[in-house]
Amino acid sequence: MTAQFYATAEANPNLALIKYWGKRLEPPIIAPLNNNVSVTLDEQLRTRTSVLFSDNLKRDEILINGKLMKTAEELEKAVPQLDAARALAKTNMRAKVASATLTPLAGGLAGSAAGLCALAAACNEALNLKLSQKELSILCRRGSGSACRSVYGGFVEWLAGTHADGSDSYAVQWFDEKYWEEFRTVIAMVSRKEKKTKSRAGQKHTVKTSTLYQQRLKDIGTRIEALKNAVKDKDITKVAEIAMRDSNSLHAVCLDTWPPIFYLNDTSKEIVYAIHDFNENEIKAGYSFDAGP
Amino acid sequence: MTAQFYATAEANPNLALIKYWGKRLEPPIIAPLNNNVSVTLDEQLRTRTSVLFSDNLKRDEILINGKLMKTAEELEKAVPQLDAARALAKTNMRAKVASATLTPLAGGLAGSAAGLCALAAACNEALNLKLSQKELSILCRRGSGSACRSVYGGFVEWLAGTHADGSDSYAVQWFDEKYWEEFRTVIAMVSRKEKKTKSRAGQKHTVKTSTLYQQRLKDIGTRIEALKNAVKDKDITKVAEIAMRDSNSLHAVCLDTWPPIFYLNDTSKEIVYAIHDFNENEIKAGYSFDAGP
Repeated sequence: MTAQFYATAEANPNLALIKYWGKRLEPPIIAPLNNNVSVTLDEQLRTRTSVLFSDNLKRDEILINGKLMKTAEELEKAVPQLDAARALAKTNMRAKVASATLTPLAGGLAGSAAGLCALAAACNEALNLKLSQKELSILCRRGSGSACRSVYGGFVEWLAGTHADGSDSYAVQWFDEKYWEEFRTVIAMVSRKEKKTKSRAGQKHTVKTSTLYQQRLKDIGTRIEALKNAVKDKDITKVAEIAMRDSNSLHAVCLDTWPPIFYLNDTSKEIVYAIHDFNENEIKAGYSFDAGP
Repeated sequence: MTAQFYATAEANPNLALIKYWGKRLEPPIIAPLNNNVSVTLDEQLRTRTSVLFSDNLKRDEILINGKLMKTAEELEKAVPQLDAARALAKTNMRAKVASATLTPLAGGLAGSAAGLCALAAACNEALNLKLSQKELSILCRRGSGSACRSVYGGFVEWLAGTHADGSDSYAVQWFDEKYWEEFRTVIAMVSRKEKKTKSRAGQKHTVKTSTLYQQRLKDIGTRIEALKNAVKDKDITKVAEIAMRDSNSLHAVCLDTWPPIFYLNDTSKEIVYAIHDFNENEIKAGYSFDAGP
Protein backbone atom coordinates (compact mmCIF):
# COMPACT_ATOMS: atom_id res chain seq x y z
CA MET A 1 0.00 0.00 0.00
CA THR A 2 1.20 3.50 -0.90
CA ALA A 3 1.26 6.36 1.57
CA GLN A 4 0.13 9.69 0.10
CA PHE A 5 -0.42 12.97 1.85
CA TYR A 6 -1.83 15.99 0.12
CA ALA A 7 -2.74 19.56 1.02
CA THR A 8 -3.18 22.99 -0.50
CA ALA A 9 -2.57 26.34 1.15
CA GLU A 10 -2.46 30.00 0.23
CA ALA A 11 -0.32 32.94 1.28
CA ASN A 12 0.17 36.60 0.39
CA PRO A 13 3.42 38.41 -0.32
CA ASN A 14 4.61 41.04 2.11
CA LEU A 15 6.34 44.36 1.60
CA ALA A 16 9.15 45.23 4.00
CA LEU A 17 9.01 48.68 5.59
CA ILE A 18 12.29 47.97 7.39
CA LYS A 19 14.30 45.86 5.00
CA TYR A 20 15.97 42.51 5.53
CA TRP A 21 19.39 42.62 3.84
CA GLY A 22 22.21 40.45 5.14
CA LYS A 23 22.17 37.05 6.81
CA ARG A 24 23.33 36.16 10.32
CA LEU A 25 22.89 32.46 9.50
CA GLU A 26 23.32 31.18 5.98
CA PRO A 27 20.96 28.71 4.23
CA PRO A 28 19.52 26.25 4.98
CA ILE A 29 18.90 27.85 8.41
CA ILE A 30 18.60 31.52 7.33
CA ALA A 31 18.44 34.20 9.98
CA PRO A 32 18.85 37.92 9.31
CA LEU A 33 21.47 40.31 10.66
CA ASN A 34 18.77 42.79 11.61
CA ASN A 35 15.20 42.63 12.84
CA ASN A 36 12.93 43.70 10.00
CA VAL A 37 9.30 44.60 9.55
CA SER A 38 6.75 44.20 6.80
CA VAL A 39 3.14 44.69 5.98
CA THR A 40 1.37 41.72 4.45
CA LEU A 41 -0.42 42.52 1.23
CA ASP A 42 -3.97 41.48 0.52
CA GLU A 43 -5.17 38.65 -1.70
CA GLN A 44 -4.60 40.26 -5.08
CA LEU A 45 -1.10 38.81 -5.38
CA ARG A 46 -1.91 35.63 -3.47
CA THR A 47 -0.06 32.41 -4.18
CA ARG A 48 -1.70 28.99 -3.98
CA THR A 49 0.52 25.99 -3.45
CA SER A 50 -0.29 22.30 -3.32
CA VAL A 51 2.00 19.58 -2.06
CA LEU A 52 1.77 15.83 -2.42
CA PHE A 53 4.09 13.61 -0.40
CA SER A 54 4.19 10.09 -1.73
CA ASP A 55 6.22 6.88 -1.44
CA ASN A 56 5.91 6.56 -5.21
CA LEU A 57 7.97 9.65 -6.00
CA LYS A 58 11.65 9.19 -6.80
CA ARG A 59 12.57 12.84 -6.41
CA ASP A 60 11.13 16.21 -5.51
CA GLU A 61 9.32 17.92 -8.34
CA ILE A 62 8.49 21.60 -8.22
CA LEU A 63 6.16 23.27 -10.69
CA ILE A 64 5.71 27.02 -10.61
CA ASN A 65 2.90 28.33 -12.78
CA GLY A 66 3.02 25.02 -14.62
CA LYS A 67 6.75 25.15 -15.32
CA LEU A 68 8.99 22.40 -13.97
CA MET A 69 11.95 23.73 -12.02
CA LYS A 70 15.16 22.00 -13.03
CA THR A 71 18.27 23.94 -12.09
CA ALA A 72 19.92 23.90 -8.68
CA GLU A 73 19.22 27.62 -8.48
CA GLU A 74 15.52 27.07 -9.11
CA LEU A 75 15.33 24.37 -6.49
CA GLU A 76 17.49 25.96 -3.80
CA LYS A 77 14.61 27.51 -1.92
CA ALA A 78 11.89 24.84 -1.98
CA VAL A 79 13.93 21.68 -1.43
CA PRO A 80 15.57 22.74 1.87
CA GLN A 81 12.12 23.63 3.13
CA LEU A 82 10.72 20.24 2.11
CA ASP A 83 13.72 18.64 3.85
CA ALA A 84 12.93 20.55 7.03
CA ALA A 85 9.27 19.47 6.85
CA ARG A 86 10.32 15.83 6.30
CA ALA A 87 12.67 16.01 9.26
CA LEU A 88 9.82 17.24 11.46
CA ALA A 89 7.53 14.44 10.20
CA LYS A 90 10.32 11.86 10.31
CA THR A 91 9.64 10.77 6.75
CA ASN A 92 11.68 10.39 3.60
CA MET A 93 8.84 10.72 1.13
CA ARG A 94 9.61 12.87 -1.87
CA ALA A 95 7.14 15.57 -2.81
CA LYS A 96 5.43 17.06 -5.80
CA VAL A 97 4.74 20.76 -5.46
CA ALA A 98 2.57 22.89 -7.69
CA SER A 99 2.42 26.58 -7.08
CA ALA A 100 0.36 29.19 -8.90
CA THR A 101 1.08 32.82 -8.34
CA LEU A 102 -0.04 36.15 -9.69
CA THR A 103 3.16 37.82 -8.48
CA PRO A 104 5.87 38.20 -11.10
CA LEU A 105 8.85 36.20 -9.87
CA ALA A 106 12.45 37.42 -9.55
CA GLY A 107 11.22 40.97 -10.03
CA GLY A 108 11.73 41.99 -6.42
CA LEU A 109 8.07 41.64 -5.47
CA ALA A 110 8.47 38.96 -2.82
CA GLY A 111 6.78 36.37 -4.99
CA SER A 112 8.98 33.61 -3.62
CA ALA A 113 8.19 34.68 -0.05
CA ALA A 114 4.48 34.09 -0.66
CA GLY A 115 5.15 30.80 -2.45
CA LEU A 116 7.35 29.44 0.29
CA CYS A 117 4.99 30.53 3.01
CA ALA A 118 2.15 28.72 1.23
CA LEU A 119 4.37 25.67 0.78
CA ALA A 120 5.19 25.55 4.50
CA ALA A 121 1.52 25.81 5.35
CA ALA A 122 0.68 23.04 2.88
CA CYS A 123 3.42 20.79 4.31
CA ASN A 124 2.17 21.49 7.83
CA GLU A 125 -1.29 20.31 6.85
CA ALA A 126 -0.31 17.43 4.56
CA LEU A 127 2.09 15.94 7.10
CA ASN A 128 -0.13 16.86 10.04
CA LEU A 129 2.75 18.65 11.77
CA LYS A 130 0.42 20.73 13.98
CA LEU A 131 2.87 23.64 13.99
CA SER A 132 2.09 26.81 15.92
CA GLN A 133 2.29 30.06 13.95
CA LYS A 134 5.73 30.65 15.44
CA GLU A 135 6.93 27.17 14.38
CA LEU A 136 5.38 27.66 10.98
CA SER A 137 7.32 30.90 10.53
CA ILE A 138 10.52 29.02 11.38
CA LEU A 139 9.72 26.42 8.72
CA CYS A 140 8.96 29.16 6.17
CA ARG A 141 12.31 30.82 6.87
CA ARG A 142 14.13 27.72 5.63
CA GLY A 143 12.96 28.38 2.10
CA SER A 144 13.06 32.15 1.92
CA GLY A 145 13.82 34.32 4.92
CA SER A 146 11.16 36.91 4.29
CA ALA A 147 8.54 34.19 3.76
CA CYS A 148 8.29 33.89 7.55
CA ARG A 149 6.61 37.30 7.73
CA SER A 150 3.77 36.14 5.47
CA VAL A 151 2.54 33.76 8.17
CA TYR A 152 0.60 36.70 9.61
CA GLY A 153 -1.48 39.49 8.13
CA GLY A 154 -1.00 43.11 9.14
CA PHE A 155 2.30 44.45 10.47
CA VAL A 156 4.84 41.75 11.19
CA GLU A 157 8.38 41.76 12.62
CA TRP A 158 10.95 39.07 11.90
CA LEU A 159 13.27 38.78 14.87
CA ALA A 160 16.93 38.19 14.06
CA GLY A 161 17.54 36.22 17.26
CA THR A 162 20.96 35.27 18.57
CA HIS A 163 20.90 31.44 18.82
CA ALA A 164 23.28 29.52 16.57
CA ASP A 165 20.50 27.11 15.52
CA GLY A 166 18.15 29.95 14.56
CA SER A 167 15.50 28.79 17.04
CA ASP A 168 14.85 32.34 18.27
CA SER A 169 14.53 33.84 14.80
CA TYR A 170 10.85 33.93 13.90
CA ALA A 171 7.99 36.24 13.00
CA VAL A 172 5.75 38.08 15.43
CA GLN A 173 2.64 40.03 14.60
CA TRP A 174 2.56 43.65 15.78
CA PHE A 175 -0.97 44.44 14.65
CA ASP A 176 -3.34 42.38 12.54
CA GLU A 177 -4.76 43.34 9.16
CA LYS A 178 -7.89 44.83 10.76
CA TYR A 179 -6.04 47.24 13.04
CA TRP A 180 -5.44 49.91 10.42
CA GLU A 181 -7.65 49.23 7.43
CA GLU A 182 -7.10 52.70 5.94
CA PHE A 183 -3.43 51.82 5.39
CA ARG A 184 -3.21 50.98 1.68
CA THR A 185 -0.50 49.43 -0.40
CA VAL A 186 -0.24 49.99 -4.14
CA ILE A 187 2.18 47.83 -6.09
CA ALA A 188 3.79 49.38 -9.14
CA MET A 189 5.42 46.94 -11.50
CA VAL A 190 8.11 49.01 -13.14
CA SER A 191 9.89 46.34 -15.15
CA ARG A 192 9.21 42.75 -16.14
CA LYS A 193 12.89 41.99 -16.55
CA GLU A 194 14.43 39.61 -14.06
CA LYS A 195 16.76 41.47 -11.77
CA LYS A 196 20.45 41.36 -12.61
CA THR A 197 21.58 40.53 -9.08
CA LYS A 198 19.55 37.98 -7.09
CA SER A 199 18.83 39.02 -3.52
CA ARG A 200 20.72 36.13 -2.00
CA ALA A 201 24.00 36.86 -3.80
CA GLY A 202 23.52 40.61 -3.45
CA GLN A 203 23.12 40.45 0.33
CA LYS A 204 26.31 38.48 0.71
CA HIS A 205 28.30 40.97 -1.34
CA THR A 206 26.91 43.91 0.60
CA VAL A 207 27.77 42.45 4.00
CA LYS A 208 31.25 41.61 2.80
CA THR A 209 32.17 44.76 0.91
CA SER A 210 30.05 47.79 1.84
CA THR A 211 31.79 49.98 4.39
CA LEU A 212 28.50 51.80 5.02
CA TYR A 213 26.54 48.63 5.82
CA GLN A 214 27.45 48.38 9.53
CA GLN A 215 26.14 51.90 10.08
CA ARG A 216 22.85 50.91 8.44
CA LEU A 217 22.58 48.02 10.93
CA LYS A 218 23.19 50.40 13.84
CA ASP A 219 20.41 52.72 12.63
CA ILE A 220 17.77 50.03 12.41
CA GLY A 221 17.03 49.49 16.11
CA THR A 222 15.79 53.06 16.63
CA ARG A 223 13.99 52.98 13.32
CA ILE A 224 11.99 49.87 14.26
CA GLU A 225 11.01 51.31 17.63
CA ALA A 226 9.83 54.53 15.98
CA LEU A 227 7.91 52.54 13.35
CA LYS A 228 6.13 50.45 15.99
CA ASN A 229 4.93 53.58 17.78
CA ALA A 230 3.91 55.21 14.51
CA VAL A 231 1.88 52.16 13.43
CA LYS A 232 0.28 51.99 16.87
CA ASP A 233 -0.71 55.65 16.51
CA LYS A 234 -1.79 55.10 12.87
CA ASP A 235 0.47 58.04 12.03
CA ILE A 236 0.94 57.81 8.25
CA THR A 237 3.34 60.76 8.19
CA LYS A 238 5.80 58.95 10.42
CA VAL A 239 5.25 55.47 8.99
CA ALA A 240 5.79 56.72 5.45
CA GLU A 241 8.91 58.71 6.32
CA ILE A 242 10.51 55.79 8.17
CA ALA A 243 9.72 53.39 5.32
CA MET A 244 11.07 55.75 2.65
CA ARG A 245 14.27 56.41 4.58
CA ASP A 246 14.86 52.73 5.23
CA SER A 247 14.29 51.91 1.58
CA ASN A 248 16.74 54.64 0.55
CA SER A 249 19.29 53.36 3.07
CA LEU A 250 18.99 49.83 1.65
CA HIS A 251 19.56 50.99 -1.91
CA ALA A 252 22.43 53.21 -0.71
CA VAL A 253 24.30 50.21 0.76
CA CYS A 254 23.57 48.26 -2.43
CA LEU A 255 25.24 51.04 -4.41
CA ASP A 256 28.14 51.00 -1.92
CA THR A 257 28.57 47.26 -2.53
CA TRP A 258 31.54 46.13 -4.61
CA PRO A 259 30.82 45.65 -7.45
CA PRO A 260 27.81 47.96 -7.03
CA ILE A 261 24.22 46.74 -7.14
CA PHE A 262 21.49 48.92 -8.66
CA TYR A 263 17.89 47.92 -8.29
CA LEU A 264 16.29 51.31 -8.95
CA ASN A 265 15.90 52.60 -12.47
CA ASP A 266 14.78 55.91 -13.98
CA THR A 267 11.12 54.99 -13.54
CA SER A 268 11.71 54.20 -9.86
CA LYS A 269 13.27 57.64 -9.54
CA GLU A 270 10.24 59.27 -11.17
CA ILE A 271 8.05 57.50 -8.62
CA VAL A 272 10.25 58.77 -5.79
CA TYR A 273 10.07 62.34 -7.11
CA ALA A 274 6.32 62.09 -7.67
CA ILE A 275 5.77 60.95 -4.08
CA HIS A 276 7.98 63.70 -2.69
CA ASP A 277 6.08 66.27 -4.79
CA PHE A 278 2.77 64.84 -3.60
CA ASN A 279 4.04 65.05 0.00
CA GLU A 280 5.30 68.60 -0.37
CA ASN A 281 3.18 70.11 2.39
CA GLU A 282 2.52 67.01 4.45
CA ILE A 283 3.61 63.41 4.13
CA LYS A 284 0.56 61.40 3.10
CA ALA A 285 2.21 58.65 1.10
CA GLY A 286 5.46 56.76 0.98
CA TYR A 287 7.43 54.41 -1.23
CA SER A 288 9.48 51.35 -0.52
CA PHE A 289 11.53 49.44 -3.07
CA ASP A 290 12.53 45.85 -2.51
CA ALA A 291 15.38 44.27 -4.45
CA GLY A 292 13.91 45.33 -7.79
CA PRO A 293 12.93 48.54 -9.60
CA MET B 1 41.99 109.65 -14.77
CA THR B 2 40.37 106.22 -14.72
CA ALA B 3 42.12 103.20 -13.25
CA GLN B 4 41.63 100.05 -15.30
CA PHE B 5 43.19 96.66 -14.83
CA TYR B 6 42.67 93.82 -17.23
CA ALA B 7 43.85 90.24 -17.61
CA THR B 8 42.84 86.94 -19.17
CA ALA B 9 43.59 83.45 -17.86
CA GLU B 10 42.70 79.86 -18.63
CA ALA B 11 42.03 76.81 -16.52
CA ASN B 12 40.92 73.21 -16.98
CA PRO B 13 38.21 71.36 -15.08
CA ASN B 14 39.22 68.52 -12.78
CA LEU B 15 37.62 65.20 -12.02
CA ALA B 16 37.60 64.07 -8.40
CA LEU B 17 38.79 60.53 -7.73
CA ILE B 18 38.06 61.01 -4.03
CA LYS B 19 35.02 63.22 -3.87
CA TYR B 20 34.47 66.46 -2.02
CA TRP B 21 30.98 66.37 -0.49
CA GLY B 22 30.21 68.35 2.64
CA LYS B 23 31.60 71.62 3.93
CA ARG B 24 33.58 72.24 7.13
CA LEU B 25 33.38 76.00 6.51
CA GLU B 26 30.44 77.51 4.67
CA PRO B 27 30.70 80.16 1.92
CA PRO B 28 32.30 82.62 1.49
CA ILE B 29 35.26 80.82 3.10
CA ILE B 30 34.52 77.23 1.91
CA ALA B 31 36.54 74.35 3.31
CA PRO B 32 35.64 70.68 2.92
CA LEU B 33 34.90 68.13 5.62
CA ASN B 34 37.29 65.66 4.00
CA ASN B 35 40.53 65.86 2.07
CA ASN B 36 39.79 65.06 -1.55
CA VAL B 37 41.77 64.31 -4.68
CA SER B 38 41.31 64.98 -8.36
CA VAL B 39 43.02 64.66 -11.68
CA THR B 40 43.09 67.78 -13.79
CA LEU B 41 41.73 67.27 -17.29
CA ASP B 42 43.51 68.46 -20.39
CA GLU B 43 42.70 71.47 -22.53
CA GLN B 44 39.68 70.08 -24.37
CA LEU B 45 37.25 71.44 -21.80
CA ARG B 46 39.34 74.50 -20.97
CA THR B 47 37.71 77.71 -19.80
CA ARG B 48 39.04 81.16 -20.69
CA THR B 49 38.10 84.04 -18.44
CA SER B 50 38.86 87.73 -18.72
CA VAL B 51 38.41 90.29 -15.97
CA LEU B 52 38.42 94.04 -16.11
CA PHE B 53 38.54 96.06 -12.89
CA SER B 54 37.58 99.65 -13.43
CA ASP B 55 36.60 102.76 -11.47
CA ASN B 56 33.96 103.34 -14.09
CA LEU B 57 31.90 100.28 -13.26
CA LYS B 58 28.94 100.66 -10.92
CA ARG B 59 28.49 96.99 -10.23
CA ASP B 60 30.02 93.59 -10.98
CA GLU B 61 28.96 92.17 -14.31
CA ILE B 62 29.46 88.51 -15.13
CA LEU B 63 29.03 87.11 -18.61
CA ILE B 64 29.26 83.37 -19.16
CA ASN B 65 29.36 82.31 -22.78
CA GLY B 66 27.98 85.72 -23.66
CA LYS B 67 25.04 85.55 -21.26
CA LEU B 68 24.74 88.12 -18.49
CA MET B 69 24.25 86.57 -15.07
CA LYS B 70 21.47 88.25 -13.15
CA THR B 71 20.12 86.19 -10.29
CA ALA B 72 21.66 85.91 -6.83
CA GLU B 73 22.14 82.20 -7.51
CA GLU B 74 24.07 82.91 -10.70
CA LEU B 75 26.31 85.42 -8.96
CA GLU B 76 26.89 83.57 -5.69
CA LYS B 77 30.15 81.98 -6.80
CA ALA B 78 31.94 84.73 -8.74
CA VAL B 79 31.13 87.77 -6.61
CA PRO B 80 32.57 86.44 -3.30
CA GLN B 81 35.73 85.55 -5.20
CA LEU B 82 35.96 89.06 -6.68
CA ASP B 83 35.40 90.43 -3.16
CA ALA B 84 38.29 88.33 -1.86
CA ALA B 85 40.54 89.53 -4.69
CA ARG B 86 39.55 93.14 -3.99
CA ALA B 87 40.29 92.69 -0.29
CA LEU B 88 43.78 91.40 -1.14
CA ALA B 89 44.37 94.34 -3.50
CA LYS B 90 42.76 96.85 -1.12
CA THR B 91 40.51 98.20 -3.84
CA ASN B 92 36.81 98.75 -4.30
CA MET B 93 36.75 98.70 -8.07
CA ARG B 94 33.91 96.73 -9.57
CA ALA B 95 34.68 94.18 -12.25
CA LYS B 96 33.45 92.97 -15.59
CA VAL B 97 34.04 89.28 -16.15
CA ALA B 98 33.66 87.38 -19.41
CA SER B 99 34.09 83.65 -19.38
CA ALA B 100 33.94 81.24 -22.31
CA THR B 101 33.78 77.55 -21.63
CA LEU B 102 33.36 74.36 -23.57
CA THR B 103 32.18 72.53 -20.45
CA PRO B 104 28.40 72.28 -20.11
CA LEU B 105 27.49 74.08 -16.90
CA ALA B 106 25.38 72.72 -14.02
CA GLY B 107 25.69 69.26 -15.52
CA GLY B 108 28.08 67.99 -12.89
CA LEU B 109 31.19 68.35 -15.06
CA ALA B 110 33.04 70.84 -12.85
CA GLY B 111 32.55 73.62 -15.37
CA SER B 112 32.27 76.19 -12.61
CA ALA B 113 35.48 74.91 -11.00
CA ALA B 114 37.42 75.65 -14.18
CA GLY B 115 35.72 79.02 -14.60
CA LEU B 116 36.43 80.12 -11.05
CA CYS B 117 40.01 78.92 -11.19
CA ALA B 118 40.53 80.92 -14.37
CA LEU B 119 38.86 83.94 -12.76
CA ALA B 120 41.16 83.75 -9.74
CA ALA B 121 44.19 83.54 -12.01
CA ALA B 122 42.93 86.51 -14.04
CA CYS B 123 42.33 88.57 -10.87
CA ASN B 124 45.80 87.66 -9.63
CA GLU B 125 47.31 89.02 -12.81
CA ALA B 126 45.04 92.04 -13.32
CA LEU B 127 45.49 93.25 -9.75
CA ASN B 128 49.13 92.20 -9.61
CA LEU B 129 48.53 90.21 -6.43
CA LYS B 130 51.64 88.06 -6.93
CA LEU B 131 49.99 85.08 -5.26
CA SER B 132 51.84 81.80 -4.85
CA GLN B 133 50.13 78.69 -6.18
CA LYS B 134 49.01 77.91 -2.65
CA GLU B 135 47.55 81.39 -2.17
CA LEU B 136 45.94 81.21 -5.58
CA SER B 137 44.23 77.94 -4.61
CA ILE B 138 42.88 79.65 -1.49
CA LEU B 139 41.46 82.47 -3.62
CA CYS B 140 39.91 79.95 -6.05
CA ARG B 141 38.23 78.14 -3.17
CA ARG B 142 36.20 81.25 -2.33
CA GLY B 143 34.25 80.87 -5.53
CA SER B 144 33.92 77.13 -5.84
CA GLY B 145 35.65 74.73 -3.49
CA SER B 146 36.81 72.27 -6.09
CA ALA B 147 38.19 75.12 -8.25
CA CYS B 148 41.24 75.16 -5.99
CA ARG B 149 42.35 71.79 -7.40
CA SER B 150 42.49 73.20 -10.94
CA VAL B 151 45.43 75.42 -9.97
CA TYR B 152 47.68 72.45 -10.75
CA GLY B 153 47.79 69.83 -13.48
CA GLY B 154 48.15 66.13 -12.71
CA PHE B 155 46.98 64.61 -9.42
CA VAL B 156 45.98 67.17 -6.82
CA GLU B 157 44.79 66.96 -3.22
CA TRP B 158 42.68 69.60 -1.54
CA LEU B 159 43.45 69.61 2.17
CA ALA B 160 40.49 70.14 4.49
CA GLY B 161 42.60 71.86 7.15
CA THR B 162 41.42 72.63 10.66
CA HIS B 163 41.77 76.41 11.05
CA ALA B 164 38.59 78.41 11.55
CA ASP B 165 39.66 80.98 8.93
CA GLY B 166 40.35 78.29 6.31
CA SER B 167 44.00 79.35 5.97
CA ASP B 168 45.25 75.74 6.02
CA SER B 169 42.75 74.50 3.44
CA TYR B 170 44.43 74.60 0.03
CA ALA B 171 45.52 72.44 -2.89
CA VAL B 172 48.77 70.51 -3.16
CA GLN B 173 50.06 68.72 -6.21
CA TRP B 174 50.90 65.02 -5.76
CA PHE B 175 52.29 64.42 -9.23
CA ASP B 176 52.28 66.72 -12.25
CA GLU B 177 50.59 66.03 -15.59
CA LYS B 178 53.79 64.54 -17.04
CA TYR B 179 54.22 61.90 -14.34
CA TRP B 180 51.76 59.39 -15.75
CA GLU B 181 50.92 60.34 -19.31
CA GLU B 182 49.30 56.99 -20.09
CA PHE B 183 46.55 57.78 -17.58
CA ARG B 184 43.61 58.88 -19.73
CA THR B 185 40.31 60.51 -18.90
CA VAL B 186 37.28 60.20 -21.13
CA ILE B 187 34.31 62.42 -20.38
CA ALA B 188 30.88 61.05 -21.23
CA MET B 189 28.11 63.60 -21.34
CA VAL B 190 25.04 61.58 -20.46
CA SER B 191 22.46 64.31 -20.20
CA ARG B 192 22.26 67.99 -21.12
CA LYS B 193 19.61 68.66 -18.52
CA GLU B 194 20.60 70.81 -15.58
CA LYS B 195 20.77 68.71 -12.47
CA LYS B 196 17.76 68.78 -10.15
CA THR B 197 19.75 69.33 -6.97
CA LYS B 198 22.65 71.79 -7.09
CA SER B 199 25.81 70.50 -5.42
CA ARG B 200 25.86 73.21 -2.79
CA ALA B 201 22.36 72.50 -1.49
CA GLY B 202 22.82 68.75 -1.89
CA GLN B 203 25.96 68.65 0.23
CA LYS B 204 24.25 70.51 3.05
CA HIS B 205 21.32 68.10 3.09
CA THR B 206 23.59 65.07 3.06
CA VAL B 207 25.69 66.26 6.01
CA LYS B 208 22.54 67.09 7.95
CA THR B 209 20.40 64.04 7.22
CA SER B 210 22.38 61.02 6.00
CA THR B 211 23.13 58.59 8.80
CA LEU B 212 25.68 56.85 6.56
CA TYR B 213 27.66 60.00 5.80
CA GLN B 214 29.91 59.96 8.90
CA GLN B 215 31.06 56.45 7.99
CA ARG B 216 31.96 57.66 4.51
CA LEU B 217 34.12 60.38 6.10
CA LYS B 218 35.87 57.78 8.27
CA ASP B 219 36.68 55.64 5.21
CA ILE B 220 38.29 58.43 3.24
CA GLY B 221 41.62 58.72 5.09
CA THR B 222 42.69 55.18 4.23
CA ARG B 223 41.33 55.53 0.73
CA ILE B 224 43.45 58.64 0.03
CA GLU B 225 46.60 56.99 1.34
CA ALA B 226 46.00 53.94 -0.85
CA LEU B 227 45.29 56.17 -3.85
CA LYS B 228 48.52 58.10 -3.37
CA ASN B 229 50.56 54.91 -3.36
CA ALA B 230 48.68 53.54 -6.35
CA VAL B 231 49.26 56.71 -8.39
CA LYS B 232 52.91 56.71 -7.37
CA ASP B 233 53.16 53.10 -8.63
CA LYS B 234 51.11 53.93 -11.76
CA ASP B 235 48.89 51.01 -10.77
CA ILE B 236 45.72 51.49 -12.84
CA THR B 237 44.01 48.48 -11.23
CA LYS B 238 44.18 50.06 -7.80
CA VAL B 239 43.57 53.64 -8.90
CA ALA B 240 40.48 52.63 -10.85
CA GLU B 241 39.07 50.49 -8.04
CA ILE B 242 39.54 53.21 -5.43
CA ALA B 243 37.97 55.83 -7.70
CA MET B 244 34.98 53.62 -8.54
CA ARG B 245 34.36 52.75 -4.91
CA ASP B 246 34.60 56.34 -3.77
CA SER B 247 32.21 57.44 -6.52
CA ASN B 248 29.75 54.72 -5.50
CA SER B 249 30.07 55.72 -1.85
CA LEU B 250 29.31 59.35 -2.74
CA HIS B 251 26.19 58.42 -4.67
CA ALA B 252 25.17 56.06 -1.85
CA VAL B 253 25.18 58.86 0.73
CA CYS B 254 23.28 61.06 -1.75
CA LEU B 255 20.60 58.38 -1.93
CA ASP B 256 20.63 58.15 1.89
CA THR B 257 20.02 61.93 2.09
CA TRP B 258 16.55 63.09 3.10
CA PRO B 259 14.87 63.77 0.76
CA PRO B 260 17.04 61.54 -1.43
CA ILE B 261 19.33 62.89 -4.16
CA PHE B 262 19.84 60.93 -7.37
CA TYR B 263 22.50 62.00 -9.81
CA LEU B 264 22.91 58.73 -11.69
CA ASN B 265 20.42 57.71 -14.34
CA ASP B 266 19.89 54.55 -16.41
CA THR B 267 22.62 55.56 -18.87
CA SER B 268 25.08 56.07 -16.00
CA LYS B 269 24.18 52.55 -14.84
CA GLU B 270 24.84 51.15 -18.30
CA ILE B 271 28.26 52.80 -18.22
CA VAL B 272 28.97 51.26 -14.82
CA TYR B 273 27.95 47.80 -16.04
CA ALA B 274 29.97 48.21 -19.25
CA ILE B 275 33.10 49.11 -17.29
CA HIS B 276 32.63 46.18 -14.91
CA ASP B 277 32.16 43.84 -17.89
CA PHE B 278 35.26 45.28 -19.55
CA ASN B 279 37.17 44.76 -16.28
CA GLU B 280 35.95 41.21 -15.80
CA ASN B 281 39.37 39.57 -15.75
CA GLU B 282 41.46 42.54 -14.73
CA ILE B 283 40.66 46.12 -13.84
CA LYS B 284 41.89 48.28 -16.68
CA ALA B 285 39.40 51.13 -16.52
CA GLY B 286 37.28 52.92 -13.96
CA TYR B 287 34.42 55.38 -13.74
CA SER B 288 33.73 58.29 -11.49
CA PHE B 289 30.53 60.32 -11.43
CA ASP B 290 30.43 63.83 -10.05
CA ALA B 291 27.17 65.45 -9.00
CA GLY B 292 25.54 64.67 -12.35
CA PRO B 293 24.68 61.64 -14.49
